[in-house]
Amino acid sequence: MSNTMKALVYEGPEKISLTDVPIPKIIEPDDAIVRVTTSTICGTDIHIWHGGMPEVAPGRIIGHEFVGEVVEVGPAVRNNKVGDKVAVSCVTQCGECFYCVRGIYSHCVTGSWIFGYMIDGCQAEYVRVPHANLGLFTIPDGLTEEDVLFVGDILSTGYYGAEKAQIQPGDTVAVMGAGPVGMCGMTASRLWGPAEIIAVDINQGRLDTAVANGIADIGINPLEVENVGDAIRERTKGRGADATIEANGFKPTFDMAIDAVRPGGIVSLIGVFEKPQELAMNTLWIKNIMISMGLVNANRIPELIKLIQTGKINTNFLCTHRAPLNNIIEGYDVFGNKKDNCLKWVITPYQK
Amino acid sequence: MSNTMKALVYEGPEKISLTDVPIPKIIEPDDAIVRVTTSTICGTDIHIWHGGMPEVAPGRIIGHEFVGEVVEVGPAVRNNKVGDKVAVSCVTQCGECFYCVRGIYSHCVTGSWIFGYMIDGCQAEYVRVPHANLGLFTIPDGLTEEDVLFVGDILSTGYYGAEKAQIQPGDTVAVMGAGPVGMCGMTASRLWGPAEIIAVDINQGRLDTAVANGIADIGINPLEVENVGDAIRERTKGRGADATIEANGFKPTFDMAIDAVRPGGIVSLIGVFEKPQELAMNTLWIKNIMISMGLVNANRIPELIKLIQTGKINTNFLCTHRAPLNNIIEGYDVFGNKKDNCLKWVITPYQK
Amino acid sequence: MSNTMKALVYEGPEKISLTDVPIPKIIEPDDAIVRVTTSTICGTDIHIWHGGMPEVAPGRIIGHEFVGEVVEVGPAVRNNKVGDKVAVSCVTQCGECFYCVRGIYSHCVTGSWIFGYMIDGCQAEYVRVPHANLGLFTIPDGLTEEDVLFVGDILSTGYYGAEKAQIQPGDTVAVMGAGPVGMCGMTASRLWGPAEIIAVDINQGRLDTAVANGIADIGINPLEVENVGDAIRERTKGRGADATIEANGFKPTFDMAIDAVRPGGIVSLIGVFEKPQELAMNTLWIKNIMISMGLVNANRIPELIKLIQTGKINTNFLCTHRAPLNNIIEGYDVFGNKKDNCLKWVITPYQK
Amino acid sequence: MSNTMKALVYEGPEKISLTDVPIPKIIEPDDAIVRVTTSTICGTDIHIWHGGMPEVAPGRIIGHEFVGEVVEVGPAVRNNKVGDKVAVSCVTQCGECFYCVRGIYSHCVTGSWIFGYMIDGCQAEYVRVPHANLGLFTIPDGLTEEDVLFVGDILSTGYYGAEKAQIQPGDTVAVMGAGPVGMCGMTASRLWGPAEIIAVDINQGRLDTAVANGIADIGINPLEVENVGDAIRERTKGRGADATIEANGFKPTFDMAIDAVRPGGIVSLIGVFEKPQELAMNTLWIKNIMISMGLVNANRIPELIKLIQTGKINTNFLCTHRAPLNNIIEGYDVFGNKKDNCLKWVITPYQK
Repeated sequence: MSNTMKALVYEGPEKISLTDVPIPKIIEPDDAIVRVTTSTICGTDIHIWHGGMPEVAPGRIIGHEFVGEVVEVGPAVRNNKVGDKVAVSCVTQCGECFYCVRGIYSHCVTGSWIFGYMIDGCQAEYVRVPHANLGLFTIPDGLTEEDVLFVGDILSTGYYGAEKAQIQPGDTVAVMGAGPVGMCGMTASRLWGPAEIIAVDINQGRLDTAVANGIADIGINPLEVENVGDAIRERTKGRGADATIEANGFKPTFDMAIDAVRPGGIVSLIGVFEKPQELAMNTLWIKNIMISMGLVNANRIPELIKLIQTGKINTNFLCTHRAPLNNIIEGYDVFGNKKDNCLKWVITPYQK
Repeated sequence: MSNTMKALVYEGPEKISLTDVPIPKIIEPDDAIVRVTTSTICGTDIHIWHGGMPEVAPGRIIGHEFVGEVVEVGPAVRNNKVGDKVAVSCVTQCGECFYCVRGIYSHCVTGSWIFGYMIDGCQAEYVRVPHANLGLFTIPDGLTEEDVLFVGDILSTGYYGAEKAQIQPGDTVAVMGAGPVGMCGMTASRLWGPAEIIAVDINQGRLDTAVANGIADIGINPLEVENVGDAIRERTKGRGADATIEANGFKPTFDMAIDAVRPGGIVSLIGVFEKPQELAMNTLWIKNIMISMGLVNANRIPELIKLIQTGKINTNFLCTHRAPLNNIIEGYDVFGNKKDNCLKWVITPYQK
Repeated sequence: MSNTMKALVYEGPEKISLTDVPIPKIIEPDDAIVRVTTSTICGTDIHIWHGGMPEVAPGRIIGHEFVGEVVEVGPAVRNNKVGDKVAVSCVTQCGECFYCVRGIYSHCVTGSWIFGYMIDGCQAEYVRVPHANLGLFTIPDGLTEEDVLFVGDILSTGYYGAEKAQIQPGDTVAVMGAGPVGMCGMTASRLWGPAEIIAVDINQGRLDTAVANGIADIGINPLEVENVGDAIRERTKGRGADATIEANGFKPTFDMAIDAVRPGGIVSLIGVFEKPQELAMNTLWIKNIMISMGLVNANRIPELIKLIQTGKINTNFLCTHRAPLNNIIEGYDVFGNKKDNCLKWVITPYQK
Repeated sequence: MSNTMKALVYEGPEKISLTDVPIPKIIEPDDAIVRVTTSTICGTDIHIWHGGMPEVAPGRIIGHEFVGEVVEVGPAVRNNKVGDKVAVSCVTQCGECFYCVRGIYSHCVTGSWIFGYMIDGCQAEYVRVPHANLGLFTIPDGLTEEDVLFVGDILSTGYYGAEKAQIQPGDTVAVMGAGPVGMCGMTASRLWGPAEIIAVDINQGRLDTAVANGIADIGINPLEVENVGDAIRERTKGRGADATIEANGFKPTFDMAIDAVRPGGIVSLIGVFEKPQELAMNTLWIKNIMISMGLVNANRIPELIKLIQTGKINTNFLCTHRAPLNNIIEGYDVFGNKKDNCLKWVITPYQK
C-alpha cells in the first residue's frame, strides 16, 4: 500500500481540490483507521467551501458522513476489529466527560463534530477515527452501505430535531424545509406517532417526494398559500402545530416555525444559521413555547440501524446521485447549487 | 318515547338477563343522556358476570364501551349538544380533583371507571353520562361508529400500557397476550417507533391475526418454544425486550413479562388479575426494572380519533361478531368463552 | 350590604382612580364572589397603568393577586362554600379544554390570565371568580393571609420558571433579576436541589436581601464585574450555569441569560418583555440550549401551600409595605417607581 | 514499598480474616491503583460474610465504599494522575456499552458492582480500580475524606432511590428503613423539594437521629401505631404518600411501602432482598402505581460532591465508629450486628 491517498482538501474560501496527501496513522490508543467505501457531501461542507466557517484551516480534508471498513485499530480499541464494515458517527464521543455522561455528545470536550472541520475528514480514501470505541457501528448482514449511509449524520440530525420536538402520538408536526435534513426530520418524526406531518418548502418537487415516500402526509408550498401559519392553523382547529422543526437556517422558515406552533408547543431548530434572528418576545413571552437548538448528538445510531433493518425507516430515496471520489468537485457544484434535483451526492471509492 | 328500555342487567353471579328498566334521567347539571348506537362486551363484563367483582350490586346494568347520540344535556354541559354523535370515555372524569389535575383520571374521586360497575352502564338503549364535559368526543365526518368504537376503553387501555412502557424508537417490545386488549397494546406501541413488536400467545390464530394486521412483527407461541424469555433474548443480543406489556392477567404471562424484560427495562401490566403474584425480589432487586400497573386513564381519546382519521390506527379487524342487543346473552357466551374465534362482540341497537 | 364598593379603575394610559362601582354578581353557575381581604400590586398592573397593554378597556378594575373570603357561590361550585378563606389563582382554569387537559392552564380557552385584564380584578372590595372549582384554595389553619399571598401569582410564576428550567440536584442556577418575581424564581429553584443559586441584579440591596433570606447562595452585581457570563463560568469550571432564569424582561438580562447558560442547558424566561429581542442563531445553532417562555400555569398552588405550611418556603420578607385600599394610588407610585426599597405593596381592606 | 499488604479476605460463609496478600498491579490500560485512606463496611459486605452471596469466591478481598490516593495509573487513564485524592464509585463503568450509554451503569457489561464481589475490594491497603476514567472523583479542597466517604455507594444509592421515586415539590415521601441507606434516601429525597419526609423504623433512636439531622420531618415507629399506611394516609388527606422508598429488604417494609403509597404514586425499592415477595395484583392492578427496583448507578457523584461542598448535604453524622483496618473483624461484629447504635463503621489506615 502506498503512503499517499486522494483527498478533497479545503484550500481557502471557494477553493477546494482533489489532491494527494499522506494516509492517516493511529495517534491515540483508541483511534481506528477506516477505509472510506461510501461517503457524501453534506450541507455544512458547502458552508466550509464558501468560506463560511473561517475556523477551518486551509489544508483540511473535508467530509464527515461516511461508512467504511476498519483497516487498523489502536491498542485500546475494544469494540471493533480490522475488517469490520462500519457506519461512523459524525460526532466523536469520549463517553467520560461532563457532556458525554449527560448524553450531550455534541459538546464532548475532546470530540464533538470535528471530522472535516477540526481534524481531517472522510472525503478521502482513508480517515482516522478518534475515540473509536463509541464511534463505529457494524453494518448488519443484509443491509447495504447506502442503507445506513445517513445514520452517522443527517438521519441522526433529523432524529435529534424530532426528539427535541417532544412529539406525542396524535400530534401535528410541521417541518420547515424539505431538503435532505428536513426529509430526515420527517422520517424521524414518524417514530413518535404523529397523526399528521406537514412538509413546508417552496420546492414543490421536494414536497412531492416527501409525500410519495410516505414521510409527510401533505406538503404546503409557501408560494401557494397566503400564510403558512394560517394554513397550518386551519388544519388544527385554529391552534397551530404541536411541534415545528426548522431544517433550513433562514429567516422566513425561522419565523414560520415560531408562528405556526401552537401555545405550549415546541420549536425545534436544526438548520444551520448564518445570521442572528429576531425573536418577538413582546408577544412570545405569553405564548408558552420552548425553542430548542443544537448540533446532533448521534447517540441513537444502533437504534436507527435496527429500524432500517426491520423496514421501519428507509432513506435510500435520498441517494439521487452517485459518482466516484474522482468526480467530487462536480459533486460540490451539483449538490451545493441544488442542480438536477440533487438530494444527496453519494461518493464511491476512487477509481485509478 | 316510552319510559322504559331494554338493558342487560346483572342479577348475581352467573346470572344476567335482558330486561325492561326505566330510561335514565339527568341527575347532575353536567350529566348527559346518550342513546347507545354501538357498544361491546368487554373482558371485565365477563368478570362481573361470573361474580368476580362482588362490589357490583345486583340490578346493575353492565357495559362501558360504546358510542352513541346525545339526546339530552344538563344545564352545565358546555362542550356537546343534543344530536351530537359521540365516542364516550369509559373513565368518568371531573377535571378538578387531586387525581384529575395530575392526569390520573382513573382515580377521579367522583368518577373513574364507574359505568356498568358503580352506576348503570351501556348495554342498554340509553345511558346517563356524568361529567359529560370531559367524557364525550364528537365522531368526525367520514368515520364510522365501529372505526372509533374502542377509543373509549380497550384502545385507550392499550395506549396506557404502551405509554407507561416508555417505549423509545428502535426498541423491542413484547406483548404478552394477543386478545383484544393485547392487540390494542400492540397497536398503541407502534406509535412510539419500536423496531420490533413481538406478540406472545398460545392461540396461534391470534398471533397470525396480529402479524397479518401489521401490529406485530412476529408472534411467539409459548407452546412452540422452550422458553419465551430465551426466545426474546435470542432476538435482542441476549438482553431481553426493552419493554414488556402484560395484557392477560395470569401467572404465566406475568412471569414471562418480568423474565423477558432486559435490565433497566419496563414491565407494563394492563391485565386484570384475580390473584396475587410472586415477585422474585431476591434476584430482581439488582435488575433495575420498573413495573407499572393500573387502570386506563382514557385521556388521549381526541388524539386516538385523529390517528384513526389519518389512517395511522385501524382497529376494525377486532369486530369479528355483530348482533343487536336482543342477542346479548349469546354474546356473553361466545365472547366470554372465546368461541368461534371471537375477538370482539359488537352490539347494535335493539330490534323491536 | 350596599350595592357599591370601592375599586381601583383603569381609565386610560397613566390614569387610574379609586372609585365607587357596583358589587359583582354571579354570572355563570361555577362562579364565586370573593370578598378581597389582602391583595397586592403586581408588575403587570404597572404595565397596564402606563398604557402598555392597550387591550385593557377603560373602566376595568385592575389586580389579580389576592386572598379573600367566599361570600357567594353559583350552583355548580362543588369544592368551596361561603365562609371559606381562600387563596385564589390568577389564572382562571376550566379543566376541560385542549390546553387545560395538557396542564397548559395559561391558555385555557375560557380562562387564562383574565383578572384585572379581560374581566374585573381584585383591587376592590369584592371580585367575581369564574371557574371557581379550580381556582380557590382553602388557607389551612395556622397560616396567615400574607403567608399564602403570593401563591396565586408571583410564587407560581417563579415555580413555573424553575420547573421549565428543569433543574437537577447539584446544578448551578443563575436568576437574572432580583425583584419580587426573580426572588420567587430563586425560592422555587431551591425545590429542585441545586448546589448553588446565583442572583444577578444591579440593585445591591436586593442581592443582599436574597442572600440574607437564604434563597440565593451569592449575588453578582453586573456593575461590579466585567462580564456576568464570565463570572458565572468562573464558578462552574468554565462551563456556565446549568440553567438560567430571566425575570426582568429587558435586553441586558435576556442577553446575559443566554450567554451565561452552558451548552445543553436551559434558559427559562419569565420576564414580561415589551420589545423583540435578538437571538444570535449564528452561534447558538450549535449550543444545544432550550429557551422556554410563557405565562404562569398556577397549577401547583396546593403544593406551594403545603410547602409554606411545613416551613420549606417562606415569602413573607417580600411584604415590605402595607396600606389599606384607600392608599392604593400611593402604592402604584411607590411600587411602580421602586421607591423606598419596596418589594411588594400589600393592600389591606378599605377603611371607611 | 513491600510487595504485600493487609486485607480483609472472605474465606467462606462466616469466615473472614485480616491477612497478608500481594499488592494489586495494573492489568488493563485504563486501570488505576489507589491507596485506600478511608473506607467502610457496607450492608452487602455483611451478606457476603454470612455466605448469602455464594457467587463470591473464597479468597476475595471484600469492600467497595472508599476514598483514597492514586498511586499508579495505566497508559489510557486520562482524567486523573498519581497523587490525586479521590472518592471512588462502587459501580465500575466503561461508558461505552449498551447499558452505560443509557445511564444504566449498574449493568455495565464489563463493570457494574464488582469491587469486593467479582474482583478484589477496598478493605485493604491498596485496590485496583478498573475503568478509572469514569470511576475516580477528585476531592475538592476544603472537604475531608469523611465528608465524601459515602458518595461512592450509599449516598448514591439513596440518590438512586429518590430519583426513581420521581418526587415532585410539595410531595409527601415515606422512607421505610432508617438505617444508613434509608438515611441517605431521606437526604437525597430532600433534593426534590418534598413538603414532608416521613421516616419509618422500629428503632426509635434512628428515627430521632433522622429528625435531629433534618433529613426527616417526622418519624413513625410501627411499634407505636396500629397501621403505618393508615398513619401516613391520615397525614395526607386520606390518600397516602406520593412516593415510598423501601431501604430495608424485608417483607414488612415491602408491604408497607406498597400499602402506604397513594394511587398513581411510585414505590422505589433499594433494599437488598433475600426472598421473593408477594404482590397483591388482585387489588393493585387498579392502583396505578409504579414499582422501581435496582442497584445504584452512581452516576451523579460530582453533583453530590458539589452539594456537600455548598452545604446542601451533610452525611458526617453517619460516622459513628472509627478504627484502623487492624480492628476490622470487630467492625464486622459491631456494624453487622447493629451493636452500640452503630450507623457506619469507618476504617482508617492500617497501623503497623
